[in-house]
Amino acid sequence: MRIAIDAMGGDHAPKEIVLGAMDAVQDIKNLQITLVGDEEKINQYLTNSERIEILHTDEVITGDDEPVRAVRRKKNSSMVKAAAEVKEGRADACISAGNTGALMSAGLFVIGRIPGIDRPALSPTLPTLEGEGFLMLDVGANVDAKPNHLLQYAIMGSVYAEKVRSIKNPRVGLLNIGTEDGKGNELTKKAFELMKKAPINFVGNVEARDLLNGVADVVITDGFSGNVALKTIEGTASVLFSMIKETFMSSLKTKLAAGLVKKDLKGLKDKLDYSEYGGAALFGLAAPVVKAHGSSNHRAIYSAIKQTCHMVDHHVIETIKETVESMQVDEEETE
Amino acid sequence: MRIAIDAMGGDHAPKEIVLGAMDAVQDIKNLQITLVGDEEKINQYLTNSERIEILHTDEVITGDDEPVRAVRRKKNSSMVKAAAEVKEGRADACISAGNTGALMSAGLFVIGRIPGIDRPALSPTLPTLEGEGFLMLDVGANVDAKPNHLLQYAIMGSVYAEKVRSIKNPRVGLLNIGTEDGKGNELTKKAFELMKKAPINFVGNVEARDLLNGVADVVITDGFSGNVALKTIEGTASVLFSMIKETFMSSLKTKLAAGLVKKDLKGLKDKLDYSEYGGAALFGLAAPVVKAHGSSNHRAIYSAIKQTCHMVDHHVIETIKETVESMQVDEEETE
Repeated sequence: MRIAIDAMGGDHAPKEIVLGAMDAVQDIKNLQITLVGDEEKINQYLTNSERIEILHTDEVITGDDEPVRAVRRKKNSSMVKAAAEVKEGRADACISAGNTGALMSAGLFVIGRIPGIDRPALSPTLPTLEGEGFLMLDVGANVDAKPNHLLQYAIMGSVYAEKVRSIKNPRVGLLNIGTEDGKGNELTKKAFELMKKAPINFVGNVEARDLLNGVADVVITDGFSGNVALKTIEGTASVLFSMIKETFMSSLKTKLAAGLVKKDLKGLKDKLDYSEYGGAALFGLAAPVVKAHGSSNHRAIYSAIKQTCHMVDHHVIETIKETVESMQVDEEETE
Repeated sequence: MRIAIDAMGGDHAPKEIVLGAMDAVQDIKNLQITLVGDEEKINQYLTNSERIEILHTDEVITGDDEPVRAVRRKKNSSMVKAAAEVKEGRADACISAGNTGALMSAGLFVIGRIPGIDRPALSPTLPTLEGEGFLMLDVGANVDAKPNHLLQYAIMGSVYAEKVRSIKNPRVGLLNIGTEDGKGNELTKKAFELMKKAPINFVGNVEARDLLNGVADVVITDGFSGNVALKTIEGTASVLFSMIKETFMSSLKTKLAAGLVKKDLKGLKDKLDYSEYGGAALFGLAAPVVKAHGSSNHRAIYSAIKQTCHMVDHHVIETIKETVESMQVDEEETE
């Protein structure tokens, strides 16, 4: 298996990307990596090039670039060239820690969609109290979703949870403003009816307050609400940790306590760090495309590579394709 | 000024409602209260009836009642009768800690809307890191909002923040998936253009991760996304506090630390307790209607009463009415 990696994307590129790639090939025996980017800069960190090739380019898409325009104009950028490696059959999957919108566009324009999937979804795995985590899709790829898009997310998320995360019969929930059937806006009411009939373990509506309690393995939502939920989790956790830090620094007594629990609280923070779960997959594209967090260190890149290998090994794309096809056959039969 | 209070709504009714009412009349000199509910049960806690009257009824709307049906059928319920006191001019405003949807329906059917406001909004004030708090509307009264509804929320929120919370020139932000102009779904893109032209201090798009940092004094969103944001804040804070508790109980060393910071961490939790800010106002109705949290204790009821008195004293409804009217005049002039 070969994975193409945009070596220039992310806050700590290319260093952490290169280090993560070297870790991954050591760990995953049949893995070959193509690092796409500035050869000179990559070589500063590449101390072991066993099963790692460099595809040189000095063009880069930055975080400030407008996604669609950047992908169209910067055809020689590390990101677009990594996607082209997949398109042309030289790699099975690709990864970038760069501009999310641009990666989505590169995926759509260069690699293309799975037939029958209308819109791809951006799908991170988020932490839960018990540490199992849940997959949420979409968190912002498609901000004006239709009921049928949510149905497709449900299929894709369920296949991924089962194949890659080894969850048997994963519980798929619909993010809504109440748990009762019939709750919600027009979109969720219609999506609910579609999901009820889909070949998934649909557990009904779930509320945002129960997300981190692990109320479902896969949570389905439109890109706008999903983005709001994701960023609210991040913001609330960050503010709480700031407040805790402030509390601990407020007196001699609390400083003493801080010394005693410092390590344990650090562990708590790590537990909430979702880079351990890998990157956010862009479901719906014709090959695995994974967005690693912009602030990824080599550990997060390693996790994202491992996750991507799992997606290839466990034929996630093929299974999504087959499931969608069989549903279309069903539809035709019932028409 | 007279306020009608549903004495039977909420988890701790009528006890905490009655205690809160007694506190309020002691503190607010020109205040008269009508407690609507079961006279016998109310009298168990009413130790001082100075400026407090009871309007007896034994019908109650419960949390399980379907809102619209309950308001139509239970015409003698404490909630509907409290709203009727306002409608018939015997009270200036009303409060309930009961069924939120039913209170919204009672407000709409019994009290009615402000002319020019299409949909009321449910609007709690949420805590921020610096303790100033922000008003968010809507958090679920109207789950299929149109751009014009968001504009109306912005007007109402701005008036409230200025009049009741004494914030000069309050910063009004639009909850969105990015801070740049032009970001968002169809709804927020259109609402952005309307809000830019409105007589408010519009600060543009704000992201969910910055809400608790006090990025705006008033945050505008549709009821679905607002509900997701609100419940995600609640859920994330609750899970984090559980994890912290667990961490502190994990060893002898951490238990020792827990003893040292217990009080300070309790203070932290209180800081996040938004009942201190009063209840959630139902903006857009022809009189102040306030929803106190279902789990309100007497302190929260007291806060909600104080907030409601402020709304009456500072002519919030009248100012909203005038602002909306003047905008309609402007529109006609430019047509």
